[in-house]
Amino acid sequence: MVKSNTRAIVLAAGRSTRFKTKKSKLLFNICGRTMVVYPIKVLEELGIPMTVVLGYQAEEIKQDIESSKISQVSYIVQEEQLGTGHAVACTEKTWDRDNILIMNGDIPLLTKELIEKLMHDHQEKEATITFLTSLVIDPTGYGRVIEENGKISIIEEKDCTPEQRFINCINAGIYLIKRDFLEKNISKLQRSTVSGELYLVDLIAMASDENHKVEAISVAYDSVRGVNTLQELWSVEQIKRSEFIKLWMANGVRFELAQSIHIDIDVQIGAGSFIGTGVHLIGTTRIGEECSIGAFSILSNSLVDDYSTVHSHSVIQDSKIGSHVSVGPFARLRDNVTIGNDVEIGNFVEIKNTHIGDHARMKHLTYLGDAKLGKSVNVGAGTITCNYNGVEKHTTIIEDNAFIGSNNTLIAPVTVGAGAYTAGGSIITEDVPADSLAIGRAKQVNKIGYAKKLRDRFEKKSNNDSNNSYSKPACEQNTEKNIDQNIAQEDVEFNFRGAVKTDTDYKIDYKEEGF
Amino acid sequence: MVKSNTRAIVLAAGRSTRFKTKKSKLLFNICGRTMVVYPIKVLEELGIPMTVVLGYQAEEIKQDIESSKISQVSYIVQEEQLGTGHAVACTEKTWDRDNILIMNGDIPLLTKELIEKLMHDHQEKEATITFLTSLVIDPTGYGRVIEENGKISIIEEKDCTPEQRFINCINAGIYLIKRDFLEKNISKLQRSTVSGELYLVDLIAMASDENHKVEAISVAYDSVRGVNTLQELWSVEQIKRSEFIKLWMANGVRFELAQSIHIDIDVQIGAGSFIGTGVHLIGTTRIGEECSIGAFSILSNSLVDDYSTVHSHSVIQDSKIGSHVSVGPFARLRDNVTIGNDVEIGNFVEIKNTHIGDHARMKHLTYLGDAKLGKSVNVGAGTITCNYNGVEKHTTIIEDNAFIGSNNTLIAPVTVGAGAYTAGGSIITEDVPADSLAIGRAKQVNKIGYAKKLRDRFEKKSNNDSNNSYSKPACEQNTEKNIDQNIAQEDVEFNFRGAVKTDTDYKIDYKEEGF
Amino acid sequence: MVKSNTRAIVLAAGRSTRFKTKKSKLLFNICGRTMVVYPIKVLEELGIPMTVVLGYQAEEIKQDIESSKISQVSYIVQEEQLGTGHAVACTEKTWDRDNILIMNGDIPLLTKELIEKLMHDHQEKEATITFLTSLVIDPTGYGRVIEENGKISIIEEKDCTPEQRFINCINAGIYLIKRDFLEKNISKLQRSTVSGELYLVDLIAMASDENHKVEAISVAYDSVRGVNTLQELWSVEQIKRSEFIKLWMANGVRFELAQSIHIDIDVQIGAGSFIGTGVHLIGTTRIGEECSIGAFSILSNSLVDDYSTVHSHSVIQDSKIGSHVSVGPFARLRDNVTIGNDVEIGNFVEIKNTHIGDHARMKHLTYLGDAKLGKSVNVGAGTITCNYNGVEKHTTIIEDNAFIGSNNTLIAPVTVGAGAYTAGGSIITEDVPADSLAIGRAKQVNKIGYAKKLRDRFEKKSNNDSNNSYSKPACEQNTEKNIDQNIAQEDVEFNFRGAVKTDTDYKIDYKEEGF
Repeated sequence: MVKSNTRAIVLAAGRSTRFKTKKSKLLFNICGRTMVVYPIKVLEELGIPMTVVLGYQAEEIKQDIESSKISQVSYIVQEEQLGTGHAVACTEKTWDRDNILIMNGDIPLLTKELIEKLMHDHQEKEATITFLTSLVIDPTGYGRVIEENGKISIIEEKDCTPEQRFINCINAGIYLIKRDFLEKNISKLQRSTVSGELYLVDLIAMASDENHKVEAISVAYDSVRGVNTLQELWSVEQIKRSEFIKLWMANGVRFELAQSIHIDIDVQIGAGSFIGTGVHLIGTTRIGEECSIGAFSILSNSLVDDYSTVHSHSVIQDSKIGSHVSVGPFARLRDNVTIGNDVEIGNFVEIKNTHIGDHARMKHLTYLGDAKLGKSVNVGAGTITCNYNGVEKHTTIIEDNAFIGSNNTLIAPVTVGAGAYTAGGSIITEDVPADSLAIGRAKQVNKIGYAKKLRDRFEKKSNNDSNNSYSKPACEQNTEKNIDQNIAQEDVEFNFRGAVKTDTDYKIDYKEEGF
Repeated sequence: MVKSNTRAIVLAAGRSTRFKTKKSKLLFNICGRTMVVYPIKVLEELGIPMTVVLGYQAEEIKQDIESSKISQVSYIVQEEQLGTGHAVACTEKTWDRDNILIMNGDIPLLTKELIEKLMHDHQEKEATITFLTSLVIDPTGYGRVIEENGKISIIEEKDCTPEQRFINCINAGIYLIKRDFLEKNISKLQRSTVSGELYLVDLIAMASDENHKVEAISVAYDSVRGVNTLQELWSVEQIKRSEFIKLWMANGVRFELAQSIHIDIDVQIGAGSFIGTGVHLIGTTRIGEECSIGAFSILSNSLVDDYSTVHSHSVIQDSKIGSHVSVGPFARLRDNVTIGNDVEIGNFVEIKNTHIGDHARMKHLTYLGDAKLGKSVNVGAGTITCNYNGVEKHTTIIEDNAFIGSNNTLIAPVTVGAGAYTAGGSIITEDVPADSLAIGRAKQVNKIGYAKKLRDRFEKKSNNDSNNSYSKPACEQNTEKNIDQNIAQEDVEFNFRGAVKTDTDYKIDYKEEGF
Repeated sequence: MVKSNTRAIVLAAGRSTRFKTKKSKLLFNICGRTMVVYPIKVLEELGIPMTVVLGYQAEEIKQDIESSKISQVSYIVQEEQLGTGHAVACTEKTWDRDNILIMNGDIPLLTKELIEKLMHDHQEKEATITFLTSLVIDPTGYGRVIEENGKISIIEEKDCTPEQRFINCINAGIYLIKRDFLEKNISKLQRSTVSGELYLVDLIAMASDENHKVEAISVAYDSVRGVNTLQELWSVEQIKRSEFIKLWMANGVRFELAQSIHIDIDVQIGAGSFIGTGVHLIGTTRIGEECSIGAFSILSNSLVDDYSTVHSHSVIQDSKIGSHVSVGPFARLRDNVTIGNDVEIGNFVEIKNTHIGDHARMKHLTYLGDAKLGKSVNVGAGTITCNYNGVEKHTTIIEDNAFIGSNNTLIAPVTVGAGAYTAGGSIITEDVPADSLAIGRAKQVNKIGYAKKLRDRFEKKSNNDSNNSYSKPACEQNTEKNIDQNIAQEDVEFNFRGAVKTDTDYKIDYKEEGF
């Protein structure tokens, strides 16, 4: 079998100048996997050992491949970038099999089936070189395949004559070559007079001229698309995305405006689930059955169990959500949040590194960080749990059935005991025993008629100031009324505060002011 | 006239296994209407009484149709699913007209005009059976129409030979049949040797063989598209959406990135309005003239009056918004909110079951629930209105011209009288009389130099702890600086709290104030 | 040279009835420029002086053009709209060059190159009239170009016979005419018997009949697309957007789901940057190198410096962001916000007219308005800076290294000195000296066992009330559990407050309870 007799060489040394980015094109992420890892995964699945030729950003690319835990990879660094022929020559000491499969690292749509076909034909036809070609509408950027007088050759684009540039049979850059031939001929490659590079493709003309058997297999362009520009990257990503969407559609997932949705390669979605417009499912995200993920939500590396709903505009990261849970809209969960079953998390709520028990509710304008909430806890609107990140563990603990009133400030480390209540507006600095009520707020005082006096003073002041116009930012100028109200607000608070400042006591305060 | 002489049979019993969902495909919502209700609405508009054959999820489908208030529908449950022939046979007792119109329930793009043409041709040609066919690129899933030797017949896909599968003239599944013929022949249908089912389409070959007049009308595929997979559902929804978008474009509505917008069938939009990227207009939503709905906003069953703006990222549900109102970005209105004219609702604001009078302002980080606000009320940033849902009515009332300071907690039932002010940071537990000022907050104390002491203590502690490293979540590790700051924050609050606990100062402090 | 010998007439007087909007189609914004300004900018770049013929919304269009600061424009108002011939005749007194270039104002895709070609051919062929034509699939709305017996003429659509309507060579509405010919013949135009209008295009038949040289140049339709409906506007905008996206792709910018992104004509983006799904970059927005703008964010007239990240769902307006800054998700910056380097702004944070120094952090549920923050300031979650817009300057100042605790209310004008701390939950009404600790909150009191008493009372009450059912809004009815909890919440707060009310004083209250 050819497979067990083949080593692959993956060319990943180039500078990818047409990307115009510092980062090598090979490191760009396409639906959850970097470009270079796609063909490498195909080789790994086929059990083919491989040598990756590194050059530009060698260390970054090596790390990236290693983080994908691919087996049977060795690396060669091509110090100078003298062309594909030179790159392959650098790997000579790793040629431990009878056939050498050479491919570029920038062909993310390559499939296992295609390589299997290549190997099958190569063996069956006993070819010296078998390589892939494709007919394309726009051949720009590719080497052109030329067959003349029974001889086959490939001309790199930069060496093409204007006429040759019209040829639309392109070299896909994937070759299977007998090691013997490679060993004998690799050193015979000559530098291009145009670019000064050694071209691997010259081996094809060489083999053809020497009457070795050279086979070209024409394949569908999509599967061998190279990626040399960011626009080509976009095309490839479009194809990948639509592949995944169609796969999950066939498995019972409904997509609203499917063409707007982003799904990574390792994502899983259960049957009966709904995925809204613009949703991003990233990394290892797994959505259960009969779930609904609302429009414009972004989930990464998170789990959502069956029958749960993530409403629109939610951002969820590194979190686990139980079943029959409702999250959002406008919710943000991040950094190790675990949520039980039948929980409701509402709008403008941020939760970080927190565990929430079953049946809990926190529906409005809340921040919970580094907290542990028991079952059936209710957290009132506007509550802030002050979280302590650092050397000591300073968790906020809210035990089962506790009820946190609205607009509370919970200063950790603090424990609100089971069944305890906290009054609305409280600042909770000390533990609240079970079944107790905690109150941490000031008492209200009404100063009768005082608002009217302030307003009268304001109006007088406003009249005095009205000649004194000045330029305000456009946002403040929308209506005369708006300006008035802004002025009113300022004056009132100014006066109120002034009063408090000068006097010894609230009540006395106002008396001294003469009201 | 044929119309008054026709009863329709709608086949809605099938299991729709290719959807891979528990829910019947017929219950899927397409732009505001379930799949099964689309053809039924067409029949209703034509005044044709109909019999719906139910089977899989019979009860759910029946309820769904009934909730659409269609008249002249009767239901038959097909207990066993033995094919279309059997399904039609089950309805025999309802055949009270001379012509029987039979159609599948999964053809949501069907139009009134098409059925009128079918009836017109059927009558004019005095046919026994008239049915619709279509030429398609991919006939997969459909019965193929075969005409040989002047005889016409339909072969269901599962009974097709490999050659027959290439035929691209498909049966659209819509037949108009004379009742006499149907009564005589329905019982003659034979079970398919392949599937064991009775096929209605065999009547066509039967009629043709017996030299009854059989007419096939070829129509555009889009209008008779069946929906057997979630991908086909997506296609149909794309067509529907684009129909509505084009309709409203022609009526003076500007759509930004029109292909990203979702509009339901019953939505209305006034001329001169702008609808942003990704907007969802759902249910009975009605947008007035000269409005702007910002990108990524979602409105369902809501009204927006003329000259109002909903900024981006807003979610509005079951609410009514007056004219010259500005809402959002990042606003959420839900469950019976009514808003007057010239109101401004800002970001991170949630409003629920609340009435807001003209000229009111609530621009930042606020929750209003079960409240009634008068005219020209100003609600400061960070205000939480504690709402009471339950046995007794506990509304928060804020009367005309009242001014609620920032970060207030309003504990309902409570009334802030006309023209009253509340001081910033107050917790309002009691009614505030008109024109009065309410203060419900503690007095500030500055402890000179104390922050520096805490910081020194922290730094000493931090040095002691620095050997004591432990593994932190990745999110906390981004920069050395970040870690330091987090540690700082923790320690400070810890120490501050410790200080309050251990020092006599704090208590004395308050004593001295006389509390 | 023709260029220096040409004056342009831009026809911008029409009513654009097919738009169905009050606003003239010429005033619609397409990727950051109004429709009418596009061709005018082309003329300006070529240095061609121009006369704009105004009619419908003359004042608004004139103002719009003037706000674009185009040079060499004069205006003529066509009082009655009697057709294109009449419109051109109105401009006669401005014909100060040998050639008159006439064009419609609704051709936003026109290019400089096209006009240069028109002028070049006109001169080279010494034509009396040279005009542009295009072959189109759907000629609806355009005048048709007819060549018969060597004579060329144009028939306006409303005058076409049914047969002529099938002609798909259309008049693009761009003519270069020798002034002499125009002067002699403009007054000879006859009113159309169909519409009663004077048609400029009749000059072509006239010239052709009189054996003047008439040249037609056929050009690609896209570059001369007219915009007569909102659907055509959408098409043109699609083309423009994709032009800009491709341009920036070629310059090293990665776009996620490129087809969903909106970019205005004056936007700039640095190489290595990432632009997420649905992002809007509006006006003069400039993104630096190696930035990331997360999905669904909207930036207008703002700067983001190198290596900064705007996370998803952020709205940024008229602001400047330094480098290595992180903003969002769910952040809103508006109206003159300036942010230093290495700053973190988190979720549900609104910042308005505020300066923020380097290394500052404000990560959760905060509103900062009219504030000045120094370096390394930390603002706790839930903090509200009360901002004063008005006659006097009332800024909130937070100096270097100050630490604002969570849920603070900062009532401006107020200064928190360098290195100062404020305790969580404080209301800060007075200046805090440097290195001092400010506390402005009530002390917590725990009422042991009181929550249990309240709950018992509630349960008794709830049982009494349970027969007393009434209809609740649907949103409240989702689960039995939910209803119970809501009732519980109400009752608890009611009772708690009642308790406080019935006692004579806070202190006594607590004493009686045994504290």
